[in-house]
Amino acid sequence: MHKPNPSPGDLAEFAATLIERLRARAPRVHCITNAVAQNFTANVLLAAGCVPSMTISPEEIAQFVACADALLVNLGTFDAERREAVGIAVETVRLNKLPWVLDPVLIDRAPSRAEFARALMKDVPNVVRLNGAEFATIAGAPGGNTALAELSRRHGLVIALSGETDLISDGARAAAIANGHPLMAKVTAMGCAGSALIAACLGVEADAFRAAAAGLVLLGVAGEVAAQGAKGPGSFAAAFIDALAALNGDVLIQHARVN
Amino acid sequence: MHKPNPSPGDLAEFAATLIERLRARAPRVHCITNAVAQNFTANVLLAAGCVPSMTISPEEIAQFVACADALLVNLGTFDAERREAVGIAVETVRLNKLPWVLDPVLIDRAPSRAEFARALMKDVPNVVRLNGAEFATIAGAPGGNTALAELSRRHGLVIALSGETDLISDGARAAAIANGHPLMAKVTAMGCAGSALIAACLGVEADAFRAAAAGLVLLGVAGEVAAQGAKGPGSFAAAFIDALAALNGDVLIQHARVN
Amino acid sequence: MHKPNPSPGDLAEFAATLIERLRARAPRVHCITNAVAQNFTANVLLAAGCVPSMTISPEEIAQFVACADALLVNLGTFDAERREAVGIAVETVRLNKLPWVLDPVLIDRAPSRAEFARALMKDVPNVVRLNGAEFATIAGAPGGNTALAELSRRHGLVIALSGETDLISDGARAAAIANGHPLMAKVTAMGCAGSALIAACLGVEADAFRAAAAGLVLLGVAGEVAAQGAKGPGSFAAAFIDALAALNGDVLIQHARVN
Repeated sequence: MHKPNPSPGDLAEFAATLIERLRARAPRVHCITNAVAQNFTANVLLAAGCVPSMTISPEEIAQFVACADALLVNLGTFDAERREAVGIAVETVRLNKLPWVLDPVLIDRAPSRAEFARALMKDVPNVVRLNGAEFATIAGAPGGNTALAELSRRHGLVIALSGETDLISDGARAAAIANGHPLMAKVTAMGCAGSALIAACLGVEADAFRAAAAGLVLLGVAGEVAAQGAKGPGSFAAAFIDALAALNGDVLIQHARVN
Repeated sequence: MHKPNPSPGDLAEFAATLIERLRARAPRVHCITNAVAQNFTANVLLAAGCVPSMTISPEEIAQFVACADALLVNLGTFDAERREAVGIAVETVRLNKLPWVLDPVLIDRAPSRAEFARALMKDVPNVVRLNGAEFATIAGAPGGNTALAELSRRHGLVIALSGETDLISDGARAAAIANGHPLMAKVTAMGCAGSALIAACLGVEADAFRAAAAGLVLLGVAGEVAAQGAKGPGSFAAAFIDALAALNGDVLIQHARVN
Repeated sequence: MHKPNPSPGDLAEFAATLIERLRARAPRVHCITNAVAQNFTANVLLAAGCVPSMTISPEEIAQFVACADALLVNLGTFDAERREAVGIAVETVRLNKLPWVLDPVLIDRAPSRAEFARALMKDVPNVVRLNGAEFATIAGAPGGNTALAELSRRHGLVIALSGETDLISDGARAAAIANGHPLMAKVTAMGCAGSALIAACLGVEADAFRAAAAGLVLLGVAGEVAAQGAKGPGSFAAAFIDALAALNGDVLIQHARVN
């Protein structure tokens, strides 16, 4: 936890090397994600050079997770089969020492889902990525650098808070990412895609703080590049996948706004 | 039921004001919809300025519906969890006096689904939107103005029948909307999107007849605008989302063909 | 099984006539397919001129399959409801003498899924379409013309092996299709779409070998045409649907590379 705070330039350069590592190593990312996000998430992971799998069947999920490089647990459209799958998957990552990301989608809308998310945080995901309303539900306070650091230290994990500026904390280090575009909020599952990219980065990078920052830099820069030619959220969604597939170190260094 | 029949000009102007109200109020629309339609429906609602949610989990759906402004119940891919969810959701809208739309997808193909739809009509959705084959299954007669008015009066709800010309009836009033484009029939879940837009309109407008007409005008005009530059159903689907996001009162007045 | 091997020209011309038959007859294709692929598969079938349905509910699937022209069973995201649905659907096609396709997605990742696929092959799908890793799991050997013919003869069905060159065998006849584009591997559910197109072709053509070849020629040629203007996998996915919707006999004859 007491690593020196990487400079902004470090994180931008780190993201630039990480996209190359993703393409070279093609990590397998198993996703327990919501029904709305499954197709878009799979295409996002393919565009980033990864190999997605998506089954939620309790009979086979342990086999899929055990041969994956990272796990994503997303709580959207959270039905009985997904609940059961999460228990098995989290036990499998524990046994196999695999990294995983929790995305506690819309826990601000349903107390039962918030309770489930709180219980899951005791299993210590490497990264929790969420938005402001979700953060406030878990932390009982609005998101800011201090609140993030406190929540991060209390649970021993990295918090990545998406917003106009993304904030990331591991309790000792903090980063702020000012990339992204307003059209990203008009495409469903874009936040889920951010969590999936963080899981992908964890598949090739052990430092969860840097992996989380890199994942959100990839997301935000791809969004900015995609917005340049988009006529609206429909063409933007396709352009986002195109931009992510075309991302390289130079484009990332040129666009990254990390503080 | 005995309101004066609005003139066509009224309904076009009404749709023009309604798109602005959607963008200003951003109603929450909870959707129990089929697995094929979930992603497209969410993006359609976002493009119209609304906030979609999609869970079908019986444990949490009451919480989601209770804080929504309208509910959509779509019977496509109708599994056990969705059946259970519908019962809870419909009870929740009754308790909270929320509006809802029923889309009895493909009831012409499966008697068990038709039976479920007939039972649901006794819970009096504000609007039922369906196509010709589905109407004939419920009404036992082909769709026309008289048959619509009869079915509408018998159940005390608005019927919106999609087709080359859409027909809408609340038993006393009737409207015909001649907007739309043949490419709309080549994109899956386009009818489901129409039902979702009607639910969105009900989230901000208490007159279900006018809300249903406005929802189908939005759908049809966005389809016409999108078709102008589309090269086929794939680019059309993205352009439809773009067109819906760009719709405003002027475009609607210019294109609406309501009789 | 001992029909004369059609010449490559025959198969290209056959595919050219088959796209016209699809558009003229609009076969109904019922799909038990994975949650990631449902939307894309439905749009692919619509673009090919077919009528898709997708329910997996055990209560109603028999009714849907009984009035379909062909069935697709895809094992991705294979949950309890899908397992039950498959049993009912396969019994329904047996009773109604309907053709069906098995796509044993990712059986190389989970022994339990591979076991289920092996059991399903005893119900003799007309065609099994799979990739190299899946073939090796079932056949215990890498895919090549001899291994395909052996597996095909042992089970009495057509094997269609997707790869840089697709190989098809019915035990007596063999075809190799060299169409396609690398971008196809970057769009999720593209292989699933190939299986769906084979099911569509079986809906209008009784010779499963020729139907399988035609389905993969449609897939590969649409991919090549779509790649011409695509900027990446996002715009490619939309362009693929556009290209499939625009396919005609002339385009197929011009592009087909069948040996």
